[in-house]
Amino acid sequence: MKTFFNVTDLDTVRSFTSLFPPVGTETVDVLEAAGRVAAQDFQAKENLPAFSRAIMDGYALKAASTFGASEANPAYITIKGGVPMGRRPDLSIGSGEAARISTGGALPEGADSVVMIEHAEALDNQTIEVYRSVAPGQHVVQVGEDFKIEDHLFSAGQRMRAQEAGLLAAFGIESVKVYKKARVGIISTGDEIVPITETPPYGKIRDINSYSLAAMIKAAGGIAVNYGIVNDDPVSLFGVCRKAHTETDMVIISGGSSVGVRDYTIEALSQLPTSEILAHGITISPGKPTILASAGHKPVWGLPGHVVSAMVVFEAVVKPFLNRINGADPKSSSHFQVSARMTRNVPSVLGRTDFIRVQLSDKNGEYWATPVLGKSGLIRTLVEADGLVAIDMNTEGLEKGANVNVILV
Amino acid sequence: MKTFFNVTDLDTVRSFTSLFPPVGTETVDVLEAAGRVAAQDFQAKENLPAFSRAIMDGYALKAASTFGASEANPAYITIKGGVPMGRRPDLSIGSGEAARISTGGALPEGADSVVMIEHAEALDNQTIEVYRSVAPGQHVVQVGEDFKIEDHLFSAGQRMRAQEAGLLAAFGIESVKVYKKARVGIISTGDEIVPITETPPYGKIRDINSYSLAAMIKAAGGIAVNYGIVNDDPVSLFGVCRKAHTETDMVIISGGSSVGVRDYTIEALSQLPTSEILAHGITISPGKPTILASAGHKPVWGLPGHVVSAMVVFEAVVKPFLNRINGADPKSSSHFQVSARMTRNVPSVLGRTDFIRVQLSDKNGEYWATPVLGKSGLIRTLVEADGLVAIDMNTEGLEKGANVNVILV
Repeated sequence: MKTFFNVTDLDTVRSFTSLFPPVGTETVDVLEAAGRVAAQDFQAKENLPAFSRAIMDGYALKAASTFGASEANPAYITIKGGVPMGRRPDLSIGSGEAARISTGGALPEGADSVVMIEHAEALDNQTIEVYRSVAPGQHVVQVGEDFKIEDHLFSAGQRMRAQEAGLLAAFGIESVKVYKKARVGIISTGDEIVPITETPPYGKIRDINSYSLAAMIKAAGGIAVNYGIVNDDPVSLFGVCRKAHTETDMVIISGGSSVGVRDYTIEALSQLPTSEILAHGITISPGKPTILASAGHKPVWGLPGHVVSAMVVFEAVVKPFLNRINGADPKSSSHFQVSARMTRNVPSVLGRTDFIRVQLSDKNGEYWATPVLGKSGLIRTLVEADGLVAIDMNTEGLEKGANVNVILV
Repeated sequence: MKTFFNVTDLDTVRSFTSLFPPVGTETVDVLEAAGRVAAQDFQAKENLPAFSRAIMDGYALKAASTFGASEANPAYITIKGGVPMGRRPDLSIGSGEAARISTGGALPEGADSVVMIEHAEALDNQTIEVYRSVAPGQHVVQVGEDFKIEDHLFSAGQRMRAQEAGLLAAFGIESVKVYKKARVGIISTGDEIVPITETPPYGKIRDINSYSLAAMIKAAGGIAVNYGIVNDDPVSLFGVCRKAHTETDMVIISGGSSVGVRDYTIEALSQLPTSEILAHGITISPGKPTILASAGHKPVWGLPGHVVSAMVVFEAVVKPFLNRINGADPKSSSHFQVSARMTRNVPSVLGRTDFIRVQLSDKNGEYWATPVLGKSGLIRTLVEADGLVAIDMNTEGLEKGANVNVILV
């Protein structure tokens, strides 16, 4: 056990993500791939498409047969037959010849382009007039135009979307190696907390954090495992913490915001095997009393008890660690933020990163962010908010009209 | 059966959402609430909190006892005891008196504020010096300060987030009425399509759309039900379509982009019970050949076969219908977009809404959108893209530097 009071700035805390390895891999069906993090690089194992295809209904021909064609001076083309869908064409196209073709049909030998049906007129069963010239390759997807064999498709660490799932299907990949979803243990502490199934007697409140944190964990791609409520008792807390640490990949202890319980939390965290306290206090607001320990290469957190503080700390600090152990590469799993302008001045304190809750409104196609005021014990302030705005530790606040990025919550 | 060729603009198509009712409701555990759409309004059934609580560690007292206190002229306060966590305090506070209290503790009778532990010093077990005055209510959350009994919490139609889940927990609500997730049937059509388990012979390709559409449906809060691949045959198509229409809440037929199959699709859609073709062609690109029918109060779609067209149409047109039948109120389930500026001119055609794929890059804290070029048959263009930008039907394109909203895909 090492322990020392160690207030750390946000960037330093975030840099500790690299201390923790991903939780391992598993194989899932391609239908479950979207939303998961790829655990392997993918390469094209064949050309896509494997044959040149028409992307319009019309006539497959040599582009040269249409050069110079116009309304006034159409090209006369002989129809040699049609291309059946889904089959290899059994005809070949010479100069001045064409084959009827539908979207998706394979180009016959000799043809290099397609004249759209709208730009030709049938004179009889054998002959068409073409009114516009086409360029070679026009209205055609060439062999390998989407991906060539051995092309890089996407990388391990990337969170797959619908299009990556479609791409796997295109190459006939039925199952895919992904990073496992990290299991995150949640422990609620405090003599004043009762399960939501109970009517709290005077002086107690229901357990909110287990539910809001579980929802945030799930939305961020983890699996929440609830360990219930532990009273302000160091032996019980260490016991449950040790169990959660054994059974899950990351542990969050929430609550323990009173002096005594904070001491129990740091004590429990310090007693875990190979434990090291990485941060004891973070220069953010709300959320300063946050504790981060590393134990057995797993992150273990002490989060503030106030619901808003706990949620802000989860979003700003814990989530990058969850992404890390979920295998997500921050470079290839981009997270884009919404831009807005502040509707009013917001003061802030130098030397800490302030996270303010904001409500967004759209004025003439531009978002404006209005701070939601209220103490960090009030869940209402997050129910009314659309997102968070971080105010850098090196500034004294934001001026009315300032451009900000909004983290949607 | 009514059928007529009926090219419709995007706004008109979107206005048809109101024709379709939500799919019904079910009850889920509060742990499953986040991400779901509430099917009832919620009201506070009690005050939150039910008692006034300290939000700092310190001393509960009457604010008036500290008025005028400073470093030079501290207030001397008598400690009457401590407030045990989670219990009703058994002491009352008079002028010049205080009780030790931890964050979350119930304020004793007579106290109206808390002096932070840092702003006081113990002289002995009975007496403290207070160096700063506090205002009434300071460092305290009052009874009902978060929500007062009968306050409106949130409304039916709202997609719940982690904070709404926490709010339900705060009021002891263990299960919640939500709209059911709509079941969406997917049918892939075309003689050229083979299952992804097969190696396609020359002229055929694997079924991509069933997988990319299923992932999009799931991400949008629906349940995808795959009905496999149907060949270009009107009897089979109608049979599968009818089955899917009976078993699900919305049906998407994708493919059928060749002339013959388009006819089969419109025929199948028209033959469904009480069918009405609402749109036969939409003035968007890609995706013009899209068909929308209403049959038995369910939306039934004919989507283009090109993967990019199908995905763009899903995002731009189908998704609002899925949200609608999933019970989501567009007003209370806000969807915020990312702003960016175009890195180059993009031409567009008057009279249709163009959806271009863009890649985003961050330059000095501002996003710039670069069009991803390529035919709508190329899934690569969506794999490389971060989002879509809509170019209004009344403009002839976007100029370099233009501000745009990006729909992340």
